[in-house]
Formats: sequence, C-alpha cells, structure tokens
Amino acid sequence: MSEYWWQAPCQPTDHVARQKAEQRQARLTKPAGALGRLEQLAIDLAALQGRECPHLEQPWIAVFAGDHGVVEEGVSAYPQAVTRQMLHNFVAGGAAISVLAHQLHARLEVIDLGTAGDGEPLGGVHSYALGPGTANFTREPAMSSEQCHAALAAGRASVERARQVHAGLYIGGEMGIGNTTAAAALGCALLDLPALALTGAGTGLDDAGVAHKQRVIDSALLLHRHDCSEPLEALRHLGGFEIAALAGAFVACGQYGLPVLVDGFITTVAALCAVRLNPGCRPWLLFGHRSAEPGHALVLQALKGEPLLDLGLRLGEGSGAALAVPLLRLACSLHGSMATFAEAQVSDRPS
Amino acid sequence: MSEYWWQAPCQPTDHVARQKAEQRQARLTKPAGALGRLEQLAIDLAALQGRECPHLEQPWIAVFAGDHGVVEEGVSAYPQAVTRQMLHNFVAGGAAISVLAHQLHARLEVIDLGTAGDGEPLGGVHSYALGPGTANFTREPAMSSEQCHAALAAGRASVERARQVHAGLYIGGEMGIGNTTAAAALGCALLDLPALALTGAGTGLDDAGVAHKQRVIDSALLLHRHDCSEPLEALRHLGGFEIAALAGAFVACGQYGLPVLVDGFITTVAALCAVRLNPGCRPWLLFGHRSAEPGHALVLQALKGEPLLDLGLRLGEGSGAALAVPLLRLACSLHGSMATFAEAQVSDRPS
Repeated sequence: MSEYWWQAPCQPTDHVARQKAEQRQARLTKPAGALGRLEQLAIDLAALQGRECPHLEQPWIAVFAGDHGVVEEGVSAYPQAVTRQMLHNFVAGGAAISVLAHQLHARLEVIDLGTAGDGEPLGGVHSYALGPGTANFTREPAMSSEQCHAALAAGRASVERARQVHAGLYIGGEMGIGNTTAAAALGCALLDLPALALTGAGTGLDDAGVAHKQRVIDSALLLHRHDCSEPLEALRHLGGFEIAALAGAFVACGQYGLPVLVDGFITTVAALCAVRLNPGCRPWLLFGHRSAEPGHALVLQALKGEPLLDLGLRLGEGSGAALAVPLLRLACSLHGSMATFAEAQVSDRPS
Repeated sequence: MSEYWWQAPCQPTDHVARQKAEQRQARLTKPAGALGRLEQLAIDLAALQGRECPHLEQPWIAVFAGDHGVVEEGVSAYPQAVTRQMLHNFVAGGAAISVLAHQLHARLEVIDLGTAGDGEPLGGVHSYALGPGTANFTREPAMSSEQCHAALAAGRASVERARQVHAGLYIGGEMGIGNTTAAAALGCALLDLPALALTGAGTGLDDAGVAHKQRVIDSALLLHRHDCSEPLEALRHLGGFEIAALAGAFVACGQYGLPVLVDGFITTVAALCAVRLNPGCRPWLLFGHRSAEPGHALVLQALKGEPLLDLGLRLGEGSGAALAVPLLRLACSLHGSMATFAEAQVSDRPS
C-alpha cells in the first residue's frame, strides 16, 4: 500500500478507443493530416474518454488562491491585498475567468487556501484558511507538512466535486500575488536550474524588478538546497498553497481518469510537480496555451507539453486554458460529425 | 470616377471607438497586457465595428469553388473530380467547414464559379458556370477578362448577401483541386518571387511532386512575365475563379465596412491581391491561422498579417478562420463584460 494518497496508481488510457479514433480520422473527407493538431487532439481525447468519438459537454474550472510570504521581499508589481479582492471579483463575475466560464457554460468554483486579510470567509468561496499566506521562503520553508498535505487534499476534493457533476474536462486556475516567484523557485528546484532560467516579469515588473526577483529566488534555492531532492519537499519548501492544491488536483484527475487542460506558467509548474509525485498522471494532461512568461517554455519542454494557443497571455486564473476549450470542442465535433469518404462519395487520393 | 468597382474607396475605421476601447482595456481587472493579443483584437474590432464594445453574433462563411486547367500538368495528389464531389459534401453537411459552421451558428453559402463535370447546377449551390475550370496557365492565361471580372463580381455579390442578414464577420473559404499551384503562381507574381519560395505540398504531394509543381509554376511565371505587372492582370493570367472571387469579396468587405477573417495560404494570396487592387481594404482584414503550407508565412509577412492560430492546418474551405471565431467572440466578451478596477474595488498597481 502506498504511503500517501497521491502515490496510488492513475487510470490507464484506452488503447482500443485510440485505435478506433485513428482509423476514423483516416476516413474523414479531408486530406490526411489537413486538420493538423486537431486530429491528434481528438484521438487523444478518445483515448482519455474511452470512446471512438469523444465529446466535451461540461468543463469544470477551479481557481485556487493563496498568498505568499515572499512578497515581503518586494517581488510583485501589485499589493498583496489584490489576491483577496480578486476572490470577490471571481465570484461576482467580473474577472476574466468568470466571463470565460460563463461564455463556455463551464462550472466555476473558487477555493481560498489561505490569503492575507481579515480572515472572514468570503461568500461563494470554499475556504481552507491554511494561514494568511505561506511563510517567506527566503527565511524558512513556505509550508509546514500539515499545510502542504491539506493543500494537496484540497485539490483532490475539487476534482471529486467535478466528478459529482460528471465534468468532462478539468481546468485548474490560480490567483496569488507573488506566485510567479514561488512557481519559478519550485520549477528551478524540480528541474535543477538557476533562477535566471525561469524568472520573468510576472504581472509587470520592470528589468530592475526582475533582477531583484531573480536574486530572491536564488537565495531561496541556496537556503533550501539540501531539502529539495524529493518533489514533495521541494513543493513544501518553495511552493504555495494554490500550487500544492493544483498539483494534488492534477494527480487526482489522473487517478479518477478526468482529462486536464493545463493553463500557464504557474499551473504548468504545478503539473510538473504532479508528474514528479505520480508520473502516471502525465497522459491526462493537455496544454492550453504558451504563456508570455519566458520560463513557461522550459517547463513545458520538461513535460513534453505542446500547447494549443500562443497569444501572449500572462493572466493566470485558468484563462489561457479556458480560451482553448472551443478548440477541443470543435476538434471533437469535426472528428464525430464529418462525413467519411465513403459516406460522402468523395474520391480519396489514389493510394 | 473609378474605372472599375473595386477601385472605389473603402470605409475608414472608427478612431473614436478605437480610443474608447483602448481606454476601457486599461481599466479592466487584469494586469495591463495580460490578455495578450486578445486585447488588441478587441480594440481592432471596436474600430472596425464603430463601437467601444464590439460583438460578433453572426459570422458569414462563403466557400468559393473552381477548377484549374493546370491540373493537366499533374500538380495535385487528388483527382479533379473531388472539387465537385466536395461541393455536395459542403451542402450535405459532411465537410469540415459544414461542421464548423453548424457549431459556430454561422451562415454557410457555397458558390461554384466553374468546375469540371457534367455541368448540372448542384442543389443549394450558387452556380456561375464560368467554365469547366480555368485554362492551363502553363500555355495561356488562366482566365479571359470577362471570366475574371465575373469572378470578382461574384465575390462582391456574396458580401452583399452577407450584409442583407447583418453578418458581423465575413469568412471566405475555397475549394479547388490544384489551387495551391495557382495561388503560389499568383503570389510569386505579386511578390516578385521564384516558385521555390511559395511552393509546398498542398493536399499531400511527395518531394518529387513538389519539385515538379515548382517547375510547372516557374514555367508559367516565365511565360506570363510581361503580363503580370498589374495585379488584375496577374490575377487573370495565373489565378483561379475562386481566388478572383475571394479577392473581389475582400475588396467589397472593405468598401461595405465588414470585417474579414482570412483563412490559409490560398485565401491569403487572394487577400494580397485584394490589397493590391485596393489598399484601403487592408484594415478590414484579420487573420485566422498560420497554415502548414510553407509559403503562407511569406504572404502573411507581405501583408503584415499576424494570425491567431498555428495548428498545422492545411485544409482550406475557410476552416482555419472558422476555428478562430471563438477567440474573436471571447475577446469581445472579455472586453465588454469584465469588471473595471473601480467597479470591482480591486487595487490597480501603484503608478
């Protein structure tokens, strides 16, 4: 028996459905390969959903929020109060992800793992109150083991709610002033890279701000260098509540067999952490977009992830993944509804 | 007075609406620029639609079909009969563009400019019967002046039908076995490039096939080299019925003030031709996707066009543009429905 729940095996994908979907693609009235990446996308979804013709009715979007002790070091362009203010905005419908969820007929839930402020639970938000943010990881581990385990389990609980309504796709978003700093630090620890490789402007630092952020991350990597060889410990020392929750959610998606559409830089670092915790979840991860945050490319590369969109987005909240949902839906529609050469009496190319 | 209808001026775009849209973008609850290209897209649509908050209810998709005399030279992987067979498939709902139009709640019309076959008009198709295809342009001009003018006017007539139902976006698609050859030849003439620059595999030629296609195009460029200095004559000598119709449609969209979402390689060559015929139509052109056909990049560059998607598509039919429609819609929704910092009581970054 596994020591931790996240080590339990993930679901296999369905090879028979994949093969049937591949055969179907070859018969559709178009030159072979002419629909480019949408062909493989439909085939991958067929293998994940276990049916020749996949469909995607109900996406589930969970936005995880947490504050970060490291903002004391002056690593963000925005004040920390914004994390909690944005939770209101998510629930009230004014944030980008709220608008997207509405337009996509997706379910949106908001989870406050632990944010700075008066501590009053916000209406419409799942509140965990793990603390007023993580500890400043330039001085001590970001989380206690209890906090880290609770955050991972909060991610799994979200996936269980998604399953209750038979969601066909899981999108995890994040909100947390300072969380590109935590994500870059965790990514560097997992990939054994210096801060330079993954540090970017986040929500809008200038060059001096980015250089400072890089020094902050390097000092944290130095401080915790002997404690980060295991992914769980790297997550605990350098991550954030919302990053841990995302990692837990992604592992749980693999265990329950729910396809994930991964968002941007922070979420992809969480995905990398999830794959390190349990490699079996990797086949369940699809990638929505390539972020403007420069470190995203390296993390994607480590995961062999090929995002669908590249629009210079750097918002988080799950917004880049949400924007890719119509492509998944249309890939499914094309796969399932196009005529075959035989049905349409169209000549295929001479073989 | 202008000699030809396509020389009449295009509509200006609305600078006041553009400015209001830019100001609105700056107030929305997100870091400035965090929505990447979707921000400029919403602003551009505001300027084209003449309102601070654009919206996109009814796209119009017109697929223009024509056959090509140059297929005698063995430049396509598919038999010529496929053009006409696909017209049936478009109308019957089995083609990729039919499925996409249905899913997007777009109006789809199919226009047969002149295809090889029994010549019977097809039900549900606008038929022009300009001929059983163009002439083989390795021996003579592809079109007579009358054919070329009729094809241009057929494009304008399609735009007039779109206007009658108050379409908010125009997508032109194409179908025609051999039409990457015609598009490459026309593109080379307009950009003064050798065939090498714009010749690709089309629907699926092998390397030897591509090399042969390149020689065919170079011989046509040599034959007509003294007749292609004017864009209209280049179009007549080297283009196709459906390419001329697309060029006419794009100019007419500029004249009527209807935004266009341009599709792939062939459509972009038609757009280049339209801009050469009437540069005032350029601001009305948005670009849906970057095709796998390698020449597309050069033609886009000549138009300073930046496509939204890059998914390795090479189908035509308007499919790549249709796939980008949800991004336009979501860009409009985000622009119009997100809360401002003031409305949501979220702190903007300190200025």
